Amino acid sequence: MLNQNVESLRPLFKPQTVAVLGASTSPYKIGYLQIKALLDGKFDGEIFPIHPTADEIAGLPCYPSLSATPKQVDLVIFCVGYDQIKDSLADCAKHGVKSAIIFASGFSEAGEEGQQLQQELAQLAKQYGIRVVGPNCVGLVNTSNGLIGTFTPSILTVPQNGKKGVGYISQSGAFGILTYMAAAKHGVLFNYFVSTGNEMESSFEDFVEYMIHDDETNVISGYLEGAKYPDQLKVLAKQALKKKKPIILMKTGRSDAGSRAAASHTGSLAGSDKVYDGFFRQHGIIRAEDFDDIVAFSKIFNPEKLPTGKNTVIITSSGGRGINEADRCEGYGLNIMELSEQTKTAIREYLPSYASVTNPIDLTAAASVANPEYYLYPMRALVNDPDVDNIIFTEFPYMWHADTPELQEFLTLCRNSNKTVLVCPFPLDEQMTYPAATSLLIENGISVIPCDLNPIRALSKLVDYSERVRLENAIADEQEAVTTPIDLSDIVTPGQLLSEAQASEVLQRYGIPTPQRFIATSVEQAIDQARVIGFPVVMKIDSPDIPHKTEADAIRLNLQNEADVAIAYDTIVTNAKNYKPDATINGVAVIEMLQPGVELIIGAHNDPTFGPVIMAGLGGIFVEVFKDVAFKVAPLTRHDAIDLFEQLKGNAILNGARGKAAVDKEALIDVLLKVSTLMTEQKDLIQELDINPIIAYEKGVKTADSMIATKQAAPTTSTTQLIGG
Amino acid sequence: MLNQNVESLRPLFKPQTVAVLGASTSPYKIGYLQIKALLDGKFDGEIFPIHPTADEIAGLPCYPSLSATPKQVDLVIFCVGYDQIKDSLADCAKHGVKSAIIFASGFSEAGEEGQQLQQELAQLAKQYGIRVVGPNCVGLVNTSNGLIGTFTPSILTVPQNGKKGVGYISQSGAFGILTYMAAAKHGVLFNYFVSTGNEMESSFEDFVEYMIHDDETNVISGYLEGAKYPDQLKVLAKQALKKKKPIILMKTGRSDAGSRAAASHTGSLAGSDKVYDGFFRQHGIIRAEDFDDIVAFSKIFNPEKLPTGKNTVIITSSGGRGINEADRCEGYGLNIMELSEQTKTAIREYLPSYASVTNPIDLTAAASVANPEYYLYPMRALVNDPDVDNIIFTEFPYMWHADTPELQEFLTLCRNSNKTVLVCPFPLDEQMTYPAATSLLIENGISVIPCDLNPIRALSKLVDYSERVRLENAIADEQEAVTTPIDLSDIVTPGQLLSEAQASEVLQRYGIPTPQRFIATSVEQAIDQARVIGFPVVMKIDSPDIPHKTEADAIRLNLQNEADVAIAYDTIVTNAKNYKPDATINGVAVIEMLQPGVELIIGAHNDPTFGPVIMAGLGGIFVEVFKDVAFKVAPLTRHDAIDLFEQLKGNAILNGARGKAAVDKEALIDVLLKVSTLMTEQKDLIQELDINPIIAYEKGVKTADSMIATKQAAPTTSTTQLIGG
Repeated sequence: MLNQNVESLRPLFKPQTVAVLGASTSPYKIGYLQIKALLDGKFDGEIFPIHPTADEIAGLPCYPSLSATPKQVDLVIFCVGYDQIKDSLADCAKHGVKSAIIFASGFSEAGEEGQQLQQELAQLAKQYGIRVVGPNCVGLVNTSNGLIGTFTPSILTVPQNGKKGVGYISQSGAFGILTYMAAAKHGVLFNYFVSTGNEMESSFEDFVEYMIHDDETNVISGYLEGAKYPDQLKVLAKQALKKKKPIILMKTGRSDAGSRAAASHTGSLAGSDKVYDGFFRQHGIIRAEDFDDIVAFSKIFNPEKLPTGKNTVIITSSGGRGINEADRCEGYGLNIMELSEQTKTAIREYLPSYASVTNPIDLTAAASVANPEYYLYPMRALVNDPDVDNIIFTEFPYMWHADTPELQEFLTLCRNSNKTVLVCPFPLDEQMTYPAATSLLIENGISVIPCDLNPIRALSKLVDYSERVRLENAIADEQEAVTTPIDLSDIVTPGQLLSEAQASEVLQRYGIPTPQRFIATSVEQAIDQARVIGFPVVMKIDSPDIPHKTEADAIRLNLQNEADVAIAYDTIVTNAKNYKPDATINGVAVIEMLQPGVELIIGAHNDPTFGPVIMAGLGGIFVEVFKDVAFKVAPLTRHDAIDLFEQLKGNAILNGARGKAAVDKEALIDVLLKVSTLMTEQKDLIQELDINPIIAYEKGVKTADSMIATKQAAPTTSTTQLIGG
Repeated sequence: MLNQNVESLRPLFKPQTVAVLGASTSPYKIGYLQIKALLDGKFDGEIFPIHPTADEIAGLPCYPSLSATPKQVDLVIFCVGYDQIKDSLADCAKHGVKSAIIFASGFSEAGEEGQQLQQELAQLAKQYGIRVVGPNCVGLVNTSNGLIGTFTPSILTVPQNGKKGVGYISQSGAFGILTYMAAAKHGVLFNYFVSTGNEMESSFEDFVEYMIHDDETNVISGYLEGAKYPDQLKVLAKQALKKKKPIILMKTGRSDAGSRAAASHTGSLAGSDKVYDGFFRQHGIIRAEDFDDIVAFSKIFNPEKLPTGKNTVIITSSGGRGINEADRCEGYGLNIMELSEQTKTAIREYLPSYASVTNPIDLTAAASVANPEYYLYPMRALVNDPDVDNIIFTEFPYMWHADTPELQEFLTLCRNSNKTVLVCPFPLDEQMTYPAATSLLIENGISVIPCDLNPIRALSKLVDYSERVRLENAIADEQEAVTTPIDLSDIVTPGQLLSEAQASEVLQRYGIPTPQRFIATSVEQAIDQARVIGFPVVMKIDSPDIPHKTEADAIRLNLQNEADVAIAYDTIVTNAKNYKPDATINGVAVIEMLQPGVELIIGAHNDPTFGPVIMAGLGGIFVEVFKDVAFKVAPLTRHDAIDLFEQLKGNAILNGARGKAAVDKEALIDVLLKVSTLMTEQKDLIQELDINPIIAYEKGVKTADSMIATKQAAPTTSTTQLIGG
């Protein structure tokens, strides 16, 4: 089945004919630079400069208008100003143009008038099926067909060879161009570069989808400031995982956390960055720390040979470099494994006695000075060790040339093994490496990445990615259950902060275990209820007019027997009446007193980008001092729920650290999934939800306190409440 | 007063005459390459090749022996093998040679015989006052006088110009050479490079001292695997701080933590790396994460203009770059400050309305394309804002040349201000930056460091360093008090793990508050003692033969009254006797029952490198799950003790987080200082000490449990004990 988005974008990426609107005879104008760029890039289609009077520009014949071009136009590049865009686009529509690049700015980024115009343009483009990059962008490049659809002259000053197969999509024009150029300088020429600009008609996600379906693309990379269509991105990420096409995105704005006013703890902790982290992890999108991750990852990625695990061996001729890279590996979560005795013995057979066969394997300076064959020898043993996943060389003998038998044996060993082999030379390529061997290494599936490009970090991301791909194939797709939303209209009034009793009732309807609670309107009733619940109990006033129960001295904890309950009832009612004589009093709540256990926080909020987002963390100081919480976007799968806990530093405690028993994780997972269902079903009604704490026991869990704010409810000060209610 | 170490090292760094032993006529031998390196380096003294028969080598006349040289020889470079070293050194001694470089390996790193020979050589060198670099090293370089005292030919292939004043000392030859070359490639030519090798006669610390006293050195950098003389390094670090000569060291081996068997919690947490971290922080030594920190720090460091604080402003023409660098700043602890209304108003006066005057200040693409003057305008306001400490430009207008009036005004503003100004262009120097302006910027005290060299990390390290320099000048030198060690011989037997009671007694002698405790030998005595202490109390058996009191069921907690005490006494004695009928029973300990408070761990251990090391952390999960502990080397100053707590993530809790009162920090500091005194005085006796937990209250602290292992005491399994004991 043809994908409509992909098919309609093809003329943008692979046009046969390109018209340049606003072509200029002046070599300093965009309208000239653009034509020159297409020529210098050796664009493999036809170029039609549109100019009212000129005969030729840069050697190409000109045409006075779109209607005068000799062929149907696939792509029009707009080198005209803001005020001519509307008429020009209408002209394109009239002539059946299939796609357009619009550089001009002044639209949605520049105020109301611009926004208005952009809307009109978008409508026009959609009506006539014109796919548009921009406006307010630096354009689009396809290095395979020489389509340099940008006026930026510098883009052609960098090397135009190097590994292809990497698509790059950027929400920042300047950052995009710089990354494109830096990557090319480091030997990675992107096959596509798209500056998305205002995403008037085509979005970041649309281009991701194009590249997922594009046979020339192996790696989809990008610079993201904010996803416009996270639901679409989620679906695409899943498709990309299935196809083993990694999506690696740099996302900025890490430091903008949580300045929004929020009623809940969850809301205040959920800076957009943490939610993005959760979303990326959830859907197997790799997060690049910086542009170097994209370059190094592109170099190291090979869909045919994904790393088999974290176990890593380092081979070096310098003890110092070995230790340093080992530090880095462990810092990024790779495991500098202990070698088996069998493997050590096998290595020792070939190496001189002074070489160290512990990991890192130190071949000593002899290897780099006089005995390059030492680089080969350990490989004979390592490729046969099933526990070894990755092998890193800190340098490679510069004496090895194509016809060296040792190099040939080395290449054969690597080619036939499932190990990921990586060479990370010091960044002094000219002097210190093995130009003769580099291309042979790369051809044989060995990555060569100078250590200042952070190859170890890229390797660790690749290892995680590979794990994710395996997981994706291992677990069955969970169908999102179609549920009939539970009716909450009798409890929840939009625009309201729910009372504790109401919040508790909402949780209960979703099957989340809450403490037993009754409302007593007499001492006798309170005693009966306490007997049903079992002692000890907690009692507190139930009145919509007394939100601050502690201030009213209308709470009593740890009531051990009937006498305690009787006294408490009278005291609470008296105190409440004294506190607020005209308060409506529903009665006194009698509530189960919870036993101590491991306290957690489970929360959710309705994120402006992602919709319902679920948070989990350990309670108390874990959340308040260490911010040890993790987020995922609802609806959660079972695996998401498990992984939310596994991300926590405090997970050890759930598993039973400090000699204590493990808590009931299944019950916790169940609550997370129910909160996910609740938030998904009620996303139009509920803005924020905190269960803080939820207490986990060896068997079972119980919510101790909860808070729910409906949408449009004004944030209020958080209510600190006591266990038991 | 002349410094003997410095004076005697001078002929090594600044020889007038150099002899090359083992000179060779073969261009592939070290004995030839070394002479060629001196010639190519344009060594400004005389070179005497020593060769038994040759007349000349590389155009220089040869001499058959040291005795035949026409002048006294300052430095001899040994290009001879292992077996000739001893005779040659003896020959040097005979001829009054002042210094030597020995490349050969096979000494202390290669087994017993080599160790033996090295010791003899060291003795000889010391006796005749010959300063020696090596053996097992790659040599020494002084770029100021062209002394290329290394056979490594590649060292001259990198740029031989660039900022000088950076000394570099390396305990790894290969890493050292690579760093030297990478730095030169990035425009920092070290003035000195020393590969210390086996440090037979001259140590890493000796070279640090030389550079502290050397007028040509502004920054002392290095690669350290392990300090041989930490006491000397500590004294030198202080001198360097006073002179504002930063010492920046890369220290590897981060991941080698805590594999040693250890009796104490502290011992098992104190991987050497964490102790180095503490030592460096304590003494103002900057820790480089990688070689790039050394290069970037060297570029940014200016002793005349240290950063005034953390408040940082970013100026950019690309929103994306601005956000990205802001993320980095915050990640490294710099503060992306909010600009004052006054400053914003002043900036708005000059900039167009679409530019963003929030921080990062986004000048928009207009600045980089057509309006370079925008880069100047905000500076007019920022240099006058006393809250601004650092100003970072993500790029700089490439249109500005020396005669641009805007550039001239820019330079004047920077020169006359106390702000640290940093330009961090994307690493595409050739295409994207301002070659015409760069040297002018640098001359005017503005650093230009491409962003792939981690300039932001270097800036944050510089900010910390500046803070440390200010502190060093602000606090009076604390004299290390000369104390008479307290006699512990009646309690402590070497080779022993102390009983809880003994450990408690040791702490008490040093004035550390321990719970009240008595030994009762009758019920009546126990009741009397409990009355003195005050209820509730804890009771437990006191017997050298029953270390596992819980197993013996010989502990009772929370005894509320005399009746409880009476029953407990009898039960404990009965249970103990049943558990071990032949046990010697001293009696039953009656101990104050401590109230809950904030639990901390304070510990110490005798580090093989640093001697007594003190650790502090919050107790329980803080230490067990988050490893939230910090180390410093004893003896501690008061500032060290304060800083130990400030380093903790959990410090917020000590200061009264979660609505609770702050704990008595003064009392905690007092305990730390007392533990420091204890460990310093008893360092020959005590190996490890844990106070875990120590309980801190609003007023006062009290140790709840303690463990002391003497030196040579075999590590035993850790004893988990209860509060009150």
